[in-house]
Amino acid sequence: MLSKGRIKELTSLHLKKYRSARNMFLAEGDKLVREAIRSSAQVEEIFAMESWAGAEKAIQSGIPVTFTGERELKQLCELKSPNEAVALVHMPKHIIEEVEFKGHWNIYMDRLRDPGNLGTIMRIADWFGLERIICSPDSVEPYNQKVIQASMGAVFRIEVIAMEEDVMLAQARAAQVPIYAAAMGTLSIDTLAAGPEGIVLMGNEAQGLSNKLLEAADQRISIPGKGAAESLNVAVAAGILMHWIQRG
Amino acid sequence: MLSKGRIKELTSLHLKKYRSARNMFLAEGDKLVREAIRSSAQVEEIFAMESWAGAEKAIQSGIPVTFTGERELKQLCELKSPNEAVALVHMPKHIIEEVEFKGHWNIYMDRLRDPGNLGTIMRIADWFGLERIICSPDSVEPYNQKVIQASMGAVFRIEVIAMEEDVMLAQARAAQVPIYAAAMGTLSIDTLAAGPEGIVLMGNEAQGLSNKLLEAADQRISIPGKGAAESLNVAVAAGILMHWIQRG
Repeated sequence: MLSKGRIKELTSLHLKKYRSARNMFLAEGDKLVREAIRSSAQVEEIFAMESWAGAEKAIQSGIPVTFTGERELKQLCELKSPNEAVALVHMPKHIIEEVEFKGHWNIYMDRLRDPGNLGTIMRIADWFGLERIICSPDSVEPYNQKVIQASMGAVFRIEVIAMEEDVMLAQARAAQVPIYAAAMGTLSIDTLAAGPEGIVLMGNEAQGLSNKLLEAADQRISIPGKGAAESLNVAVAAGILMHWIQRG
Repeated sequence: MLSKGRIKELTSLHLKKYRSARNMFLAEGDKLVREAIRSSAQVEEIFAMESWAGAEKAIQSGIPVTFTGERELKQLCELKSPNEAVALVHMPKHIIEEVEFKGHWNIYMDRLRDPGNLGTIMRIADWFGLERIICSPDSVEPYNQKVIQASMGAVFRIEVIAMEEDVMLAQARAAQVPIYAAAMGTLSIDTLAAGPEGIVLMGNEAQGLSNKLLEAADQRISIPGKGAAESLNVAVAAGILMHWIQRG
């Protein structure tokens, strides 16, 4: 049983301002809670129905499990589909002053707006073994429940770092890694090998990259197309570019 | 002004059974309606607010435009975001008996469930210049409004064909094109050139390909990964595979 006060405290995490203030978020659903347990994420507590099959694993990992009724659990959830478990997880620090650019590949998302896109991009990074996604500070917040769900657990493994574009550009330049801007109709990635390090700048869903970022890049690159579509979905483009990066 | 009967008749198209019975669907929103006008799709009629800037173009193209009030237009729409225009469009035939396999590349989706994924995959095909997507008959219906929206207009240019797997396999074999199954942990696409023709079989979001389709393939192929993610989103995987196809 959860007290009314506790439920209120937990559901306040459905709002970004309370997540930010408390540095905590909720991950909903059996699959995500299991991913949280097996990751290095710091899980504070799990709320679950008694029927939930993951409870033993959680307790073995030293995570307290509080059993709740179906109705209480539903109150904790933003998703409408019924869930058996919800985890209360500490946010890793995601505003970091300095990122390793030398010898690494990074992706910088300029004003990414759609939570499904950010979650999908985290999942892609997790597939290809990138360590992080860097976002402009006005991008969608990574602990939005839609982001978490679309990430399929990548939220527990991939760092999402908010970084001002000037700071990112200065660090990438200081590290002397090539800066690529994804921009349609420019040099095809099929004619260029990705090399061992660099950063790819990708633009907002509707507006693409800002002129400032386009001009800051050493090289503009594009995914060659021959159909009639105006553009690719940004997560699909990120997938093709991360595959290009990993081909080297 | 639309009569109550007309509004009822149009909103019945929000349901798949009425779309199928009447072979018509609604495309909502300025961008999609403009795409419908400039495509070869057969547009029966457009319903729009008087302020809609696309009316002239529609009338020039010989499409009747019926002006409606904001409230009426809202009634016609499934989307909550306000729209200025809605088009009533004839479905192209999408249950076709025979597809050209020889000299072409095709994608076959096995039990694709998510409308956003199908729309995104249509948009990718439209980008890379594929002519069609073949789906198993139990896949999501392509005239679902979420599919249409995610397709960003590709719904007017890309054929979506429902085809039983046995029919597809028989035709691909008769045409002697290679049959590839997308399956994790198999031969990396980075070690294989796509060649001039073939078909790629892709599986359901949760279950992947059926054993039958896996075994029917000449070659299993995969997107190499080195991170911790269990899988890629199916639309992202389709994007990487269509890029592989177009590289040749």
